[in-house]
Amino acid sequence: MVVALDAMGGDHGPGATIPAALDVVSNGDLAIALVGDPQAISDVLAEHSATNHPLLQVIPSDGVVEETDNPAMVFRSKPRASIFVCSGLVKMGKAHAFVSMGSTGASIAAATVTYGTMEGITRGCLGGAIIGFSPNTAIIDLGANIDVRPQQLADFGTLGSVMSRIIYGQKNPRIALLNVGSEETKGNTLVKETAELLTRSNLNYVGMIEPYDLPYDKADVVICDGFVGNVVLKLTEGLGKAIADLVRDKGAGALADEIYSMTNQLATYGGGPLLGVNGIAVVGHGAAGSTGIATAIKTAKHVFDNDFVAAQQKELDEFHTQVS
Amino acid sequence: MVVALDAMGGDHGPGATIPAALDVVSNGDLAIALVGDPQAISDVLAEHSATNHPLLQVIPSDGVVEETDNPAMVFRSKPRASIFVCSGLVKMGKAHAFVSMGSTGASIAAATVTYGTMEGITRGCLGGAIIGFSPNTAIIDLGANIDVRPQQLADFGTLGSVMSRIIYGQKNPRIALLNVGSEETKGNTLVKETAELLTRSNLNYVGMIEPYDLPYDKADVVICDGFVGNVVLKLTEGLGKAIADLVRDKGAGALADEIYSMTNQLATYGGGPLLGVNGIAVVGHGAAGSTGIATAIKTAKHVFDNDFVAAQQKELDEFHTQVS
Repeated sequence: MVVALDAMGGDHGPGATIPAALDVVSNGDLAIALVGDPQAISDVLAEHSATNHPLLQVIPSDGVVEETDNPAMVFRSKPRASIFVCSGLVKMGKAHAFVSMGSTGASIAAATVTYGTMEGITRGCLGGAIIGFSPNTAIIDLGANIDVRPQQLADFGTLGSVMSRIIYGQKNPRIALLNVGSEETKGNTLVKETAELLTRSNLNYVGMIEPYDLPYDKADVVICDGFVGNVVLKLTEGLGKAIADLVRDKGAGALADEIYSMTNQLATYGGGPLLGVNGIAVVGHGAAGSTGIATAIKTAKHVFDNDFVAAQQKELDEFHTQVS
Repeated sequence: MVVALDAMGGDHGPGATIPAALDVVSNGDLAIALVGDPQAISDVLAEHSATNHPLLQVIPSDGVVEETDNPAMVFRSKPRASIFVCSGLVKMGKAHAFVSMGSTGASIAAATVTYGTMEGITRGCLGGAIIGFSPNTAIIDLGANIDVRPQQLADFGTLGSVMSRIIYGQKNPRIALLNVGSEETKGNTLVKETAELLTRSNLNYVGMIEPYDLPYDKADVVICDGFVGNVVLKLTEGLGKAIADLVRDKGAGALADEIYSMTNQLATYGGGPLLGVNGIAVVGHGAAGSTGIATAIKTAKHVFDNDFVAAQQKELDEFHTQVS
């Protein structure tokens, strides 16, 4: 398997992506195409005495998508940016997946154009376990879908069920709907209509989960719209940082590091695959360090090895039959 | 001033509400009507050797609204429940405000029926500073309004501005809109349309705030719909509890208590006033202990003393003129 790695993406750029790639290829079961500025990549490879590694190749790109670029428009102005060269390698059959810690919007756009979305899906979604206290609870969507309809939200449940089985090893994933109360009478219109769909499906739908319970392993998949999911993600990170700083100020440095890691899982563990598209794109957190990036690359390999894409389409088709 | 206190409401009932009332009346500047089961109230008063306190009176009620009751329907089945007796005392002119740690939905219903909503407002909203790391940042709405329109969300900004001045002492409150990115191009339809309204107003609108920044004093008022606000509230609490437990397990009990308090502010500090209604109703957190309840009662007095209601209506009228 070949993974195209956006060597330029993320807060740390090649200084983090190249060590991550070296870490991963040391297993010998994967080759990596390092996409980016050749000089910048060569410099870091030389620092690690790895200029001619047999499992690494350098693919030049020109420019990087910035957070301030409009994801829907940036392909026109920067068609040779590292993320688009990555997805292009997959399109040409020279790589089997791409991994980027860069602009989430651009990664989604690149994956959507390259792979297309699955039948019955209009846009991919992002999910993952983001709270270390409940390390197998995947929250979907984390920000790819800001305004969603009930059928989309329900689809997150199906895609999340596949994710939970294949990535987190849960046998019969419990699917829960994030809500502001556990009673059926509570919630917004979106949640109420989605609950009705989920009840009609064969998913292992266990009902509503309150935000308070997210750290307590009450479900394997928690679905919510991307606005709410992104609030959960970023509040967890910000609050965790504030608490870790407090603990550090009291002289408990190791404990502070642990709290930070528990609440900043994406930065610690890299990222997750875009769901609902016909191919493998691991969309990472900009703040990921090389350990996190290495994990993200391994995620790409893991989903590749386990027919993750086909399993999603199959279960989506079944789900749509159940609720239609 | 007389405050009607729902002595039965909240997780701890009279065991917490009565000590809170005793604490508050010890200042001598306020009388409290204790509404609830006379026997239960008398028992706790006797325990505190306060059976005939000159600033306390006992008003009997029959029944309590449970979390499982439908707030919109429960007045018919339990018209003599403690919360409705509280609001009835205000309606009859025998009290100037009511305070309850019981069912939030029932408190909102009681306040809305008793006071009516302000001109230009269809439903009250709840807000307050819930993250101890940023003790003057009020988040509105915390769960009273689950499905909102842009004008409603923008109104939270105006009401929050008054709240920030009168309750938190901020001179020129910075109003921010909670969003999943700080760029204008990000966000859902609701946020984008609300931003447009806020920009046209004379509010001190400082733009978008990301959930990550909620603990860092970037704004005095943060507005969001009640679904999102409730997620912020309950995730903060749940995560704080998980982290406090972790810290406690490591033997740092005092630090754990501090973390719990920083992330469970409503339970620690009682509750906040319902905004947008023509009277004073302090809606508290069920988990509040007597210190928190005492603070909630003091909040009722503080807003009473500072013409909080009139200030809201005045600024709402101005705001509506500015954006219409």
